[in-house]
Amino acid sequence: MTHRFIVPPSALAADRVMLDGAQARQIASVLRLRPGDRIVLVSAGIEHDVELAAVSARRVEGAVRSRHPASAEPRLRLTLALPLLRGERSEEVVEAVAQLGVARIVPFVSARSVARELSASRRSRWERIAREAAETARRGSAPEIAPVATWDELFSLLAPLVVVAWEGAREPTLVQTAPASAAQMSLVIGPEGGLTEEEIEVARKAGARVVSLGRRNLRSETAAIAAVAVVMALTER
Amino acid sequence: MTHRFIVPPSALAADRVMLDGAQARQIASVLRLRPGDRIVLVSAGIEHDVELAAVSARRVEGAVRSRHPASAEPRLRLTLALPLLRGERSEEVVEAVAQLGVARIVPFVSARSVARELSASRRSRWERIAREAAETARRGSAPEIAPVATWDELFSLLAPLVVVAWEGAREPTLVQTAPASAAQMSLVIGPEGGLTEEEIEVARKAGARVVSLGRRNLRSETAAIAAVAVVMALTER
Repeated sequence: MTHRFIVPPSALAADRVMLDGAQARQIASVLRLRPGDRIVLVSAGIEHDVELAAVSARRVEGAVRSRHPASAEPRLRLTLALPLLRGERSEEVVEAVAQLGVARIVPFVSARSVARELSASRRSRWERIAREAAETARRGSAPEIAPVATWDELFSLLAPLVVVAWEGAREPTLVQTAPASAAQMSLVIGPEGGLTEEEIEVARKAGARVVSLGRRNLRSETAAIAAVAVVMALTER
Repeated sequence: MTHRFIVPPSALAADRVMLDGAQARQIASVLRLRPGDRIVLVSAGIEHDVELAAVSARRVEGAVRSRHPASAEPRLRLTLALPLLRGERSEEVVEAVAQLGVARIVPFVSARSVARELSASRRSRWERIAREAAETARRGSAPEIAPVATWDELFSLLAPLVVVAWEGAREPTLVQTAPASAAQMSLVIGPEGGLTEEEIEVARKAGARVVSLGRRNLRSETAAIAAVAVVMALTER
């Protein structure tokens, strides 16, 4: 399989390619590619088939041989509002939802949140995991990781339709609510300790729909992956 | 929240309860419950509200005060055929799909499988994780972990409708194929290296439907959780 990298538009000038930093090191020192080898560079939803011309760990150059739209990028622009969670499990959620197709992840803290900060090093790990997962999934772009929001800030940052998954809701379900065809949607998952009645009231006043993910009690991590999977499956059926 | 335990039917004789082993230790030494405290014992789909009468780390006794069906147990009996995967990520898949409602997990090896064995200690860890996840999800029973099967054995072990998720399939999608109302279904997820054309042919000859999980390339772990979430959401809409 051809190696695939999501790159900033600045890496591609006309038909010429220039990579440095971690991607050049990866190509030269880890993958040990050579002049003449092919790679795929993806930028802003376009795949570029590239033939390498010069390879060193500090600088890789090449030429674009063809370009086409990245067909695996979802039409739906889905934002996931993800509670900050304890431990390393968040990284697996970031990886899974990046593969499944989210466009943007908004980490948030709410009244019952246990974890309340995303350190700079953890944020850059999330960004790398999201980009690599998007590359593996053959997507056209990497999910953006937004700054951490509070519950009160959250709803001004989310594009409608905003859907909040709440364990206190019985009806409607996510399947009954998810639009079959929409250009954008936002999905909010509750934290480990659940959302309070007051928080749900804030969400409803901001125009959000409050839905059930079903009768079983899910961990936040499972709920996030499951809800994104269901929305993507329904909008791409 | 009342503590919840899935127990074998033998723990409940008429209205009397007797627990020993790890569950007695958990109740006495970890949760430090006392006579008069309430717990919920779940067995074969029935929830029993129990009042504790005697508590020690070796033996817990109590009396059933009421019983009712476990309402969160899915009507669909879903079997997941899960490839043996490298590393610890399988355990997170077992946990997530147990929460989401699978009735049975059949681990298997196929031509391109890297991991080929499930050690006795790993199997008992899977069983404990599945039971605890089912308890947290408030289900009526814990998923069964079947013996490891080969690809050739697999299809005789799976109840129809059998659906194989394959990255080489474009149509139909899982959403187009999953029955809206069915008593049972089996879902087969491919291993890290993918399934071969020959393996897909074996599956088709055995009557399986081969489906796409969408245009993005998913890790096996993500595919398993996503597919179970979609099937459960569609059958409980």
